[in-house]
Amino acid sequence: MQKLLEKIYLTNKEAISKGEKASYIPALAKVSDSLGLAVRDHSSIYTAGDTEFKFTFQSISKIILLLVALQDSNTEDLFNHVGMESSGDSFNSISKLDFTHVIKPYNPFINSGAILVASLIKGFSYQEKLKKITSLCETIFQRDSISFNEEVFTSEKNSAYRNRALAYLLKEKNILKGDVEEILDLYFKCCAIEVNCIDLANLGYFLSINKHSTIPNKHFQIVKALMLTCGMYDYSGEFAVKIGLPSKSGVSGGIVTCVPQRMGIGVFSPRLDSKGNSILGIKCIDELNKALHLNIFR
Amino acid sequence: MQKLLEKIYLTNKEAISKGEKASYIPALAKVSDSLGLAVRDHSSIYTAGDTEFKFTFQSISKIILLLVALQDSNTEDLFNHVGMESSGDSFNSISKLDFTHVIKPYNPFINSGAILVASLIKGFSYQEKLKKITSLCETIFQRDSISFNEEVFTSEKNSAYRNRALAYLLKEKNILKGDVEEILDLYFKCCAIEVNCIDLANLGYFLSINKHSTIPNKHFQIVKALMLTCGMYDYSGEFAVKIGLPSKSGVSGGIVTCVPQRMGIGVFSPRLDSKGNSILGIKCIDELNKALHLNIFR
Amino acid sequence: MQKLLEKIYLTNKEAISKGEKASYIPALAKVSDSLGLAVRDHSSIYTAGDTEFKFTFQSISKIILLLVALQDSNTEDLFNHVGMESSGDSFNSISKLDFTHVIKPYNPFINSGAILVASLIKGFSYQEKLKKITSLCETIFQRDSISFNEEVFTSEKNSAYRNRALAYLLKEKNILKGDVEEILDLYFKCCAIEVNCIDLANLGYFLSINKHSTIPNKHFQIVKALMLTCGMYDYSGEFAVKIGLPSKSGVSGGIVTCVPQRMGIGVFSPRLDSKGNSILGIKCIDELNKALHLNIFR
Amino acid sequence: MQKLLEKIYLTNKEAISKGEKASYIPALAKVSDSLGLAVRDHSSIYTAGDTEFKFTFQSISKIILLLVALQDSNTEDLFNHVGMESSGDSFNSISKLDFTHVIKPYNPFINSGAILVASLIKGFSYQEKLKKITSLCETIFQRDSISFNEEVFTSEKNSAYRNRALAYLLKEKNILKGDVEEILDLYFKCCAIEVNCIDLANLGYFLSINKHSTIPNKHFQIVKALMLTCGMYDYSGEFAVKIGLPSKSGVSGGIVTCVPQRMGIGVFSPRLDSKGNSILGIKCIDELNKALHLNIFR
Repeated sequence: MQKLLEKIYLTNKEAISKGEKASYIPALAKVSDSLGLAVRDHSSIYTAGDTEFKFTFQSISKIILLLVALQDSNTEDLFNHVGMESSGDSFNSISKLDFTHVIKPYNPFINSGAILVASLIKGFSYQEKLKKITSLCETIFQRDSISFNEEVFTSEKNSAYRNRALAYLLKEKNILKGDVEEILDLYFKCCAIEVNCIDLANLGYFLSINKHSTIPNKHFQIVKALMLTCGMYDYSGEFAVKIGLPSKSGVSGGIVTCVPQRMGIGVFSPRLDSKGNSILGIKCIDELNKALHLNIFR
Repeated sequence: MQKLLEKIYLTNKEAISKGEKASYIPALAKVSDSLGLAVRDHSSIYTAGDTEFKFTFQSISKIILLLVALQDSNTEDLFNHVGMESSGDSFNSISKLDFTHVIKPYNPFINSGAILVASLIKGFSYQEKLKKITSLCETIFQRDSISFNEEVFTSEKNSAYRNRALAYLLKEKNILKGDVEEILDLYFKCCAIEVNCIDLANLGYFLSINKHSTIPNKHFQIVKALMLTCGMYDYSGEFAVKIGLPSKSGVSGGIVTCVPQRMGIGVFSPRLDSKGNSILGIKCIDELNKALHLNIFR
Repeated sequence: MQKLLEKIYLTNKEAISKGEKASYIPALAKVSDSLGLAVRDHSSIYTAGDTEFKFTFQSISKIILLLVALQDSNTEDLFNHVGMESSGDSFNSISKLDFTHVIKPYNPFINSGAILVASLIKGFSYQEKLKKITSLCETIFQRDSISFNEEVFTSEKNSAYRNRALAYLLKEKNILKGDVEEILDLYFKCCAIEVNCIDLANLGYFLSINKHSTIPNKHFQIVKALMLTCGMYDYSGEFAVKIGLPSKSGVSGGIVTCVPQRMGIGVFSPRLDSKGNSILGIKCIDELNKALHLNIFR
Repeated sequence: MQKLLEKIYLTNKEAISKGEKASYIPALAKVSDSLGLAVRDHSSIYTAGDTEFKFTFQSISKIILLLVALQDSNTEDLFNHVGMESSGDSFNSISKLDFTHVIKPYNPFINSGAILVASLIKGFSYQEKLKKITSLCETIFQRDSISFNEEVFTSEKNSAYRNRALAYLLKEKNILKGDVEEILDLYFKCCAIEVNCIDLANLGYFLSINKHSTIPNKHFQIVKALMLTCGMYDYSGEFAVKIGLPSKSGVSGGIVTCVPQRMGIGVFSPRLDSKGNSILGIKCIDELNKALHLNIFR
């Protein structure tokens, strides 16, 4: 495994400057070119490349938001507020929310859905809600504390006009309860959590094995099913067909992948394709998958 | 297994008259209330209820169209003509096809996509193309010949204005090549193939084991991935979350389900929910899944 | 004319309780049932019914915003920021703004367009911008001062989530410059200007005669053309076909109508039809039109 | 007037090769560059340029279809089948028809609406229906007979996949009654009527004066109101703002314009702008309008 990872790293590292970095906030655009790979299985963790490189959690944090909210609401109630269907549109689409027959965001992994999920996390204060999120991250990442990239947080908070528009539209539809700006703060704060690709491999492994003292098996199944159907933006279907592994992507260039009951994979490389997924990230997972026959649709 | 199937049959058969039957063509509306279950695994076939009851293949035939077309085109070329993404809309939606940025049907399991897939099946004549389809069905169903419900075929051919509109729109976009009416005939003819729930169990098993002399492993993976992401109309996401098994539904009331490397399931009951899926079909698969822990997102 | 107005008033006043009042903000829902008519022509002003009854300007203020912004920008520049086409959707629709080919609000009389128009009014401060608006109103209404319904203003400011979503979406598209909340304040403040139906008749007359020291003839033509094509929400086309007079409606129940070179008409009655237009308002204008043959498509 | 027309002709004729000709059917793309102007008023007819040049009626025939259908149905019944609102989309858009809340085409001047209007023309045979249309054309054009461009007719009939898709979608929605192909034939046949710009000036004058033995005044008002709001494709609003005259455009390069109670204008030049309107046609009408102050929003 270690050799395989190193081989994949070496054959791909030359291409780390190809493609575009996320540019919607300046802080993301100035990240260095980089490539890191990590795999966690039952016995060990394997790494290659820039595995210590810190990047922001971005959309991958939607998994954590969902796990916490599922613990705070019963499953049925949560899915009365957000759907389980792929939207067929891009992750920050607003148009469908405007149709009268669409009464809730399509799924928890598009922005409107994740903002709504964030609003379902319970707590007396913003701090208490955030604490639930960081505590779960600490458990999964096996770390004592969680750090935030404050520059990214501030930058998103001040420029995320589309997310603000989505939130106010949800508020107008009376699906979103609570204070819009506080909910957005929580959402942006989670996006700004700092992780490396080892953290992602740990997250993938955590999701693969379905074992946790307070999270029921069903929640793990829900998350993995949604990762497979909606985890890779509007490339999710093609990724399911070509690779067939539950995965979640973030615009900072990270991807987390689960191989059910077997392993977790974390990759990071900041150059993105037109759908918003890490170019080398997808390529490395594809090569791992081809070498190890991981596709769940065997 | 036999006992489990019988128990599921007995607890559900009382509800066979609940819900609506498909009414868009009269021939479908007059089908008798019925419930049939079949499971095929490596060693045997198990059945309960009205397993000999014949119904029309309808949308489940889209699997066969895709398998045949994948053999006639290379994979990349086929997916240049039809996408791999869930559409977020109902199976017969036309609106998205009208957007300029949408250059192909979303996936092979919505009507527009399946009509396009049908157009990619090669042959000197309509008869030769149809023969490819029926031959594959004979292999899968282990039967000498395939019969058609001519009443359903004629009824669909004469009233399927929406499918005709979809086909002409694809023609106008220059994605669909060939004679529109001949392609629609092929499509309607496949929808009118007569099957029973044992045939569906055989189909499910065939898809599960990925073994065929001329169909490569990759085609089986493609079909199963698409079944999981788009096989149950706009309920596909919810089905993936709740049951987690690649499945395909038809408006006549049949559902085929694969358990990768383990078994195939076929169910039939003609009353449908608002999304167009068999009410008891889903319920029986859910009960089987809960009893046997089949969910691929273990 | 006076007799005609009184006759129309008397035949319609019995129906003042039919239909629904605008309910999206509580302050609008509690307005008393009422009916007022006023006509201003070259020689005199004629009135019938509750002509002193004060109501809020609402969408009719979009005319004033446009006239002021047209003076502050050149015409071409203004229409680079907002279109001139009817949208085919309801006045507060957000979905079309999300399409990539739609780069500006459809027209100045839907909410997104009017918010954008408000942003084009120039001034060193919010107060200076508001002053431009109230000064023009004072001229048109021939009054010394303009009053605001502060309850309506506060109510809209605190609950207009959809308008806020529209504004943030315009901000994200980088069409809207400046501070979103200040622009919304200006927009809501204009909606909360208190008027009566005589004011509306004066406004209609002002627009009809195209005479003003600083407003060029072309601006009056622009406003009237847009009133005809987009002034009555998604009933504008039908109103043009049936009545054929440039008009603008507001959700508080007022309608202003121009008869080019001849007269201005103001009506008020708070019960609305499903499109958001005053039921009796439309009926009274229709009767006036039929009696006096005012339709510009003679 | 004669001098004015000649001046406009001379200043514009140099630009007759700028822009694109309609290319969706080959017969339209090969038309010679040309410019013709004609004005008909109460006393005379004035012309300049290639006034004898024959071109096909195309979308301008939608006016004739509507006038005939209004005589065959009562107004209310006709508008139960087709709306009166501008669609905000291009003339051949299909997407909105797919929304469940849209139960009829937006207006009689988009393709779906005109096809529906054609279906409302009554007659025992196709020939009888066509005869009604040609008879009205003969009256308006003051000619003994009407000729058709059979090449254009055949070309449209064999390639108009989008119009066929629209018609089948209307059929599926059960708004369109009767045989789809016969209705499309009638529609394409009217598009292929041969006219010159003098015919268009006569049509414009006919519509202007509202005088006909069997067509009531109200029908003329309806047609002019719809020409103003929807006659110039998705440029209608801008044309109303800039020129303010009821007009109807065709993709062959003709435009007919009415000045209510005063005159009719016909122009022809085959090069089109991106919205499908004749570039020089709009320019010449604009110059005439500026010279003569014809804008109805005076």
